[in-house]
Amino acid sequence: MKKPFDIVRLHHVEVTVTDLDRAYDFYVHGLGLFETARDDTHLYLRALEDANHHCLVLTKGEQASLNHIAYRVSADEDLDELDRLFTKLGTKKKWIQPGEERGQGRALRIQDPGGLPVEFFFEMEKAERMLQKFHLHKNTKIKRIDHANCLITNIDEVYQWYSNHLGFMTSEYTVKGYGEDEKMWAAWMHRKPSVHDLALISETGPRYHHTGFWMDDAKSILDACDHLAAMGYARNIERSPGRHGTSNAFFVYVRDPDGNRIELYTGDYFTNDPDWEPVKWHLDDPQRATFWGTEPPVSWKTEAVLVQDILTGILLEPKPLTPKKQETV
Amino acid sequence: MKKPFDIVRLHHVEVTVTDLDRAYDFYVHGLGLFETARDDTHLYLRALEDANHHCLVLTKGEQASLNHIAYRVSADEDLDELDRLFTKLGTKKKWIQPGEERGQGRALRIQDPGGLPVEFFFEMEKAERMLQKFHLHKNTKIKRIDHANCLITNIDEVYQWYSNHLGFMTSEYTVKGYGEDEKMWAAWMHRKPSVHDLALISETGPRYHHTGFWMDDAKSILDACDHLAAMGYARNIERSPGRHGTSNAFFVYVRDPDGNRIELYTGDYFTNDPDWEPVKWHLDDPQRATFWGTEPPVSWKTEAVLVQDILTGILLEPKPLTPKKQETV
Amino acid sequence: MKKPFDIVRLHHVEVTVTDLDRAYDFYVHGLGLFETARDDTHLYLRALEDANHHCLVLTKGEQASLNHIAYRVSADEDLDELDRLFTKLGTKKKWIQPGEERGQGRALRIQDPGGLPVEFFFEMEKAERMLQKFHLHKNTKIKRIDHANCLITNIDEVYQWYSNHLGFMTSEYTVKGYGEDEKMWAAWMHRKPSVHDLALISETGPRYHHTGFWMDDAKSILDACDHLAAMGYARNIERSPGRHGTSNAFFVYVRDPDGNRIELYTGDYFTNDPDWEPVKWHLDDPQRATFWGTEPPVSWKTEAVLVQDILTGILLEPKPLTPKKQETV
Amino acid sequence: MKKPFDIVRLHHVEVTVTDLDRAYDFYVHGLGLFETARDDTHLYLRALEDANHHCLVLTKGEQASLNHIAYRVSADEDLDELDRLFTKLGTKKKWIQPGEERGQGRALRIQDPGGLPVEFFFEMEKAERMLQKFHLHKNTKIKRIDHANCLITNIDEVYQWYSNHLGFMTSEYTVKGYGEDEKMWAAWMHRKPSVHDLALISETGPRYHHTGFWMDDAKSILDACDHLAAMGYARNIERSPGRHGTSNAFFVYVRDPDGNRIELYTGDYFTNDPDWEPVKWHLDDPQRATFWGTEPPVSWKTEAVLVQDILTGILLEPKPLTPKKQETV
Ligand SMILES: [Ca+2]
Ligand SMILES: [Fe+2]
Ligand SMILES: [Fe+2]
Ligand SMILES: [Fe+2]
Ligand SMILES: [Fe+2]
Repeated sequence: MKKPFDIVRLHHVEVTVTDLDRAYDFYVHGLGLFETARDDTHLYLRALEDANHHCLVLTKGEQASLNHIAYRVSADEDLDELDRLFTKLGTKKKWIQPGEERGQGRALRIQDPGGLPVEFFFEMEKAERMLQKFHLHKNTKIKRIDHANCLITNIDEVYQWYSNHLGFMTSEYTVKGYGEDEKMWAAWMHRKPSVHDLALISETGPRYHHTGFWMDDAKSILDACDHLAAMGYARNIERSPGRHGTSNAFFVYVRDPDGNRIELYTGDYFTNDPDWEPVKWHLDDPQRATFWGTEPPVSWKTEAVLVQDILTGILLEPKPLTPKKQETV
Repeated sequence: MKKPFDIVRLHHVEVTVTDLDRAYDFYVHGLGLFETARDDTHLYLRALEDANHHCLVLTKGEQASLNHIAYRVSADEDLDELDRLFTKLGTKKKWIQPGEERGQGRALRIQDPGGLPVEFFFEMEKAERMLQKFHLHKNTKIKRIDHANCLITNIDEVYQWYSNHLGFMTSEYTVKGYGEDEKMWAAWMHRKPSVHDLALISETGPRYHHTGFWMDDAKSILDACDHLAAMGYARNIERSPGRHGTSNAFFVYVRDPDGNRIELYTGDYFTNDPDWEPVKWHLDDPQRATFWGTEPPVSWKTEAVLVQDILTGILLEPKPLTPKKQETV
Repeated sequence: MKKPFDIVRLHHVEVTVTDLDRAYDFYVHGLGLFETARDDTHLYLRALEDANHHCLVLTKGEQASLNHIAYRVSADEDLDELDRLFTKLGTKKKWIQPGEERGQGRALRIQDPGGLPVEFFFEMEKAERMLQKFHLHKNTKIKRIDHANCLITNIDEVYQWYSNHLGFMTSEYTVKGYGEDEKMWAAWMHRKPSVHDLALISETGPRYHHTGFWMDDAKSILDACDHLAAMGYARNIERSPGRHGTSNAFFVYVRDPDGNRIELYTGDYFTNDPDWEPVKWHLDDPQRATFWGTEPPVSWKTEAVLVQDILTGILLEPKPLTPKKQETV
Repeated sequence: MKKPFDIVRLHHVEVTVTDLDRAYDFYVHGLGLFETARDDTHLYLRALEDANHHCLVLTKGEQASLNHIAYRVSADEDLDELDRLFTKLGTKKKWIQPGEERGQGRALRIQDPGGLPVEFFFEMEKAERMLQKFHLHKNTKIKRIDHANCLITNIDEVYQWYSNHLGFMTSEYTVKGYGEDEKMWAAWMHRKPSVHDLALISETGPRYHHTGFWMDDAKSILDACDHLAAMGYARNIERSPGRHGTSNAFFVYVRDPDGNRIELYTGDYFTNDPDWEPVKWHLDDPQRATFWGTEPPVSWKTEAVLVQDILTGILLEPKPLTPKKQETV
C-alpha cells in the first residue's frame, strides 16, 4: 500500500519580520545562519549542512507571522499527485510558479485543516555547503532545520488528516483527561525518521509556536546562549536550556527581535522502525515538558505568532479551544 | 517508480566471539550495551534507544568473524518480494525460520555479490527501551547501531547491485587514480537518511571491517575511552578519536577481546534530499580518512575479520584486490 | 608582609540531614560521591579528585542545617597562629580534638562575625583517589568541593574581617544603590586562585545558601540532571542549568531531600594575579545572576538553611537585613 | 618557613617565528588569541581570561626557538629577593628595564641550571578582558596559558633547584629503571595549584618542547582541531587528541608554521593540599603518555626547539643525555 507520493521532510519555513537589518543581525550574526540571497524584502538563509538555497526565508512585513511551512517531496510528479489529492479533499490550494519563491521550482500551497499555510515543492537551487568549512562557522552552529511546531484547535481532525492522507507517522503524543475522558492533546509527527517534522499542539489556533533547528550537541546549544547573550540578546533567550521529556531532546528557546520563536534542538532518536509504538505522555506528567522538572515561562505557554491565509496573506484570526481555553502548553 | 519493498535500515549484526564471558565484560560492562537474553552460545544485546530484542548478537565460535549483517524491511511481504528478486538474480539464499534467531521472525539470508552474509527480516520481539532511564545508563552510552563497514574486491559490481536492485543511495564515495584511470575505491551507502548503513571498501575481501554505533556527541565518545581504558581495555582502543573527512563523523575505533572492531560514531548529517550529489573524495586526500590529518594505525588499515558462508557457516577465504593488493584503507 | 598562616582552600562542609539512608541515595547514587566511612549518625563522602577522607559530612539531625564550613591550612602551627588571632579578636572559638571529627586531626572552630560556623584544620587521613578509576565513576562526576555560599546581614563587617584578618582576596562583588548610596551587597572571596572559596550575600542571616562542587564541564552538569531526574529527583533540580554573570561559571542547583542546596559548578577562571581588579556588578544588572537573562525561582532567592552555634549546636535565629528585608538574591 | 618571595604562576612565554604575518594567521585566526599590540618584530597576544598585556610574545627571528619563560611574582620587592638569591647561587642573570619588553615592568632574567631562559616580573599593563565577550570569541577558545614543558639533561639538579630555591611543588613524576636503578625521568612542578607550571623531561637539552594553554573542556579542544584543519592546518595537528595518564589532562598538540609546539589542555586537578603525595609513574607504563594506549608520533618524541642564551640571544647547543641518548618522551 505504497503512497503515490513521498514527502521527504520539513525543508524550510518563511516567517515575517518587521526590520530586515535587525533580523539579519539576529539570524546571521546571532544564530550563525548563512545568507544565500537578499533583496529589499527577503532574506534567504541556510544552515551548515544545507546544500540548497534556503531553510529559512525572512520576509518584511507588519508583524511577526508564519507565511508558510514547506515540505520537500521526492519527485516532481509527486506535486501533481498532491494536487489531485487536495482537489479531492476540497483543500484550499494555490500553485506557486518556479522562481516565485526565489531559488525554488514550482510549489503547491495549501491551508491545512488546522488552518496552517503549508507548501510542497521538489526543486531548489543548490548553494555552497558549509559543513566542513569549520573556520567559517560562527559561534552558533545550526546544522539544519528540524521541525515546525503548530497550535491548532482541532487536533483529532488534523492528526487524522496528516496520518491518513499525507503518510505522517507518530513518534510520541500527549493525552489530556483520564479514562473515558482521555483525548489527544498533542502529537509529534514525522516523515524523516526523527521524532518530528511537525508537532501539533491543542491551543488557541491556528498559530505558529516555533521552528526547531538541529544542532550537534548540548554544548553547542549552550555556546549559542553565551554568544547571543554577549551580543545583547539575553532577553531573547525565553526558556532556559533543558531536556524535554517528550522527544528526549535537549533544547533552548529563543525569540527573534519580532517575537518569532526558534528552538535549538538536539538528541532525539531514530523513529522509522515499522513496529514503532508511539510514546504516550499525560499532560499532567511534570517531566513531560521538562524532564528535569522546571516549568516553561508563561510567555512560552501563551505566546505564538499568527499564520497567513495562503491566498490573501491576511493573518487568520485564531480561535480558542472549546468549550474553554486550554492554558497549559 | 517505487520499489516493491522498502529496506528501512541496518538493524543488527551477528559476530562470533571465542569466550562469551569475556565478551560480556567488554560489551556490557565496557560498551554499556544491555543484555536482552543469553544462552550457552549466544548473547543478545541492545542499545539505549532500542525498543527491540537486539542490535548485536554475539555467538560463541572458533574465532572472530561476521555471521551476518541484518537489514529491517518495512513490511513482512517485502521479504517475499526480496525472495523473488534474489531468485531472479541467482543469489545464494536461505530462509531462516521464526525464532531460529532468537526474538526474530522469519528472515531471508543471502550472500551478496561481494561475498557478505546479509539478512532481511521484518519482525522482532519488543524489549524494554532504556533511553530515558538515564540512571541505568553506564559510562559508555551507545544509542543505536549505525552502519556496517565491509571490505570487498569487486566494488563496481557490488555498488551497482545495492544501488540498482536494493535501492541504496550514496552519500559519499572515494576514487583512486586520475583522469581515465579514476575508479571507485569506496562508497558510503544508505537506506535511512544518514551517511550510511553500509560502507563498501576495496580491499582484500570479503572481510568485515567494523560495526558502527551511534553516540550522542563527541564527549560521550571520549567518556567511553576513559571508561574502557580504566577497565584495562586501553590496548583495545585501536585508533584515536578524530574527525573523518568522509562522513564528517567524529569517531573512535575499539577492538573487542577477539578482534571484532567497533566504531563509536557521531555527527554525520541528513542525506535524503532527492537532489543530493554524493560527496567525492580522492584516496590521496590526506584529510579524507582523518580530517585533522593523522594516519590510522597499520592494524586498522590491514586487519579485518572473515565472513561466514550463509549455508555452511564456513569462513570464506578472502581474495586480494587484483592486480596487486591495495594497502591503504 | 606575609601572613603567619596560610589558608589553602575550602576543604569540606558538614551539613545535617534527617534520614541518612535517604541522603545516601541522593548523595552517593545521585551525586556520585564516594563513601569513605559511615556510622549510625554520620556519612563521610569524598569526590573524584579527593585523596583525603571527606569533602562532605552528612550528620543525622532534626532538620537541614549547616554544622560547619572547614578550611584547610598549610601547616599545623598555622592553627596556633589562628588561635592567637581569634583570642585577640575576641572571636567565639573552640578546639576540636583529633578524631572528634572522624579522619581529621585537631581543628579550631569559630563563629565568624556573620554568625557562620567555621573550622580550620591541617591534618586529615588519606583515602583512595578515584580520579582515574573512570570505570567506577557514576553518571554524576563531581571532582571536588569548590565553595560555600553564605547569607549574612553585616557584609561590610564580615568582608573586612575575611580580607584583613584571614587574607581572603576578592574576585568579584555586587553593589546595590547608586552614587553615594552605593554599597556592597555581595562578595566572591578566595584563598585558592579560583573565583571563590566563600561567597557572602546580604540577606536574612546567618543562613547557609549552598555548597558548590566543581565538575569538569557543562556536559557533565547536564548528565547529572538527566541522571537525577531519572532517579526520581526531578523536583530536586531547583534552578535550571545556566551561565552566571558573576564568576562566569556554568551551573545547576539541586536540593537534597532535606533541602540542603548543592551547586554543580564549572568554568570559572584563575584569580591570583597580584594586580587583579575585582569585577564589579550592579544588583540591577539582569545578566548578573544568569548571563542568559532568566530569573532564578523564588525558592532559590528566599530559602536557605539555618546554621549552628559552634558551642551549643543550637540553630541560630536569623535576622532580617535592616531597615527592611532585601528580597533579591 | 615562609619564602621571602612568592612566584604566582607561569605568566607568559616568548618564542621566535620567522614570519610574523604567517604567525598572525596561525595564532590569531587559528588559535583565537587576541592581539594586544604589534610592531615590526613582535606580536603580543593574550587569551580569553587575560586582563594583562600578553601571555605570548612572538618575535621575528631566524628559526623557531624559546626566548624566555616568564613567571609572575606577587610583589615588586620579590624581584630584589630573587636577585639576591641568584647572586648567592651564582646564576647567570640580567635585569630587563621597564618597557624593554613591551607592556612589562622591570624583570629579572636568568639561565636556570638546565640551561633554560627564565624571567621573573611583577608589573604588566592591563588589557581588555574578553572572557564574557563571547560574541567576539573565535572558534578556538583558549582561556589562559597553563604550563611550559622543557627538555633537560640534568633533571636531578634542576628538580632540586626549583624545589629548594624557588618553592616549586611536585604533582606527579616519572621514573626510569627499577629498584636501585630507579631514577627520576620527568617531573610536573607547580606554583599555582594545578598539575604544573613547569614540566621537566629528561632528553637531549636544553630544548623547549611545548607551551600548554588551558581550554574549558574537551569539546573546545575538538572544535579547535576542526577549525585549524579547515583553515589548512591539518598537518600542524601533530598528536591526536587524547587523555594523558600523567596529569589526567585531555590534550591535543599542534605545531605553528615554524615548528613551535602548542598543547591545548584541560581537565587536570587541584594540587595544593599540604599533604599531597606526588603521583608516581613508570616510564614503561603504556598508559602514562596516553591513558588510552596510543603512542605519540615520532616527531613529538624527538623534536623540540632550541633555547636562547639570556645574555647573547645565541641558541644553546643541546647535549644528549649520557651515557646514551634517551629516546622515549
Ligand atoms: Ca616577559
Ligand atoms: Fe520543537
Ligand atoms: Fe564506520
Ligand atoms: Fe555558588
Ligand atoms: Fe604539557
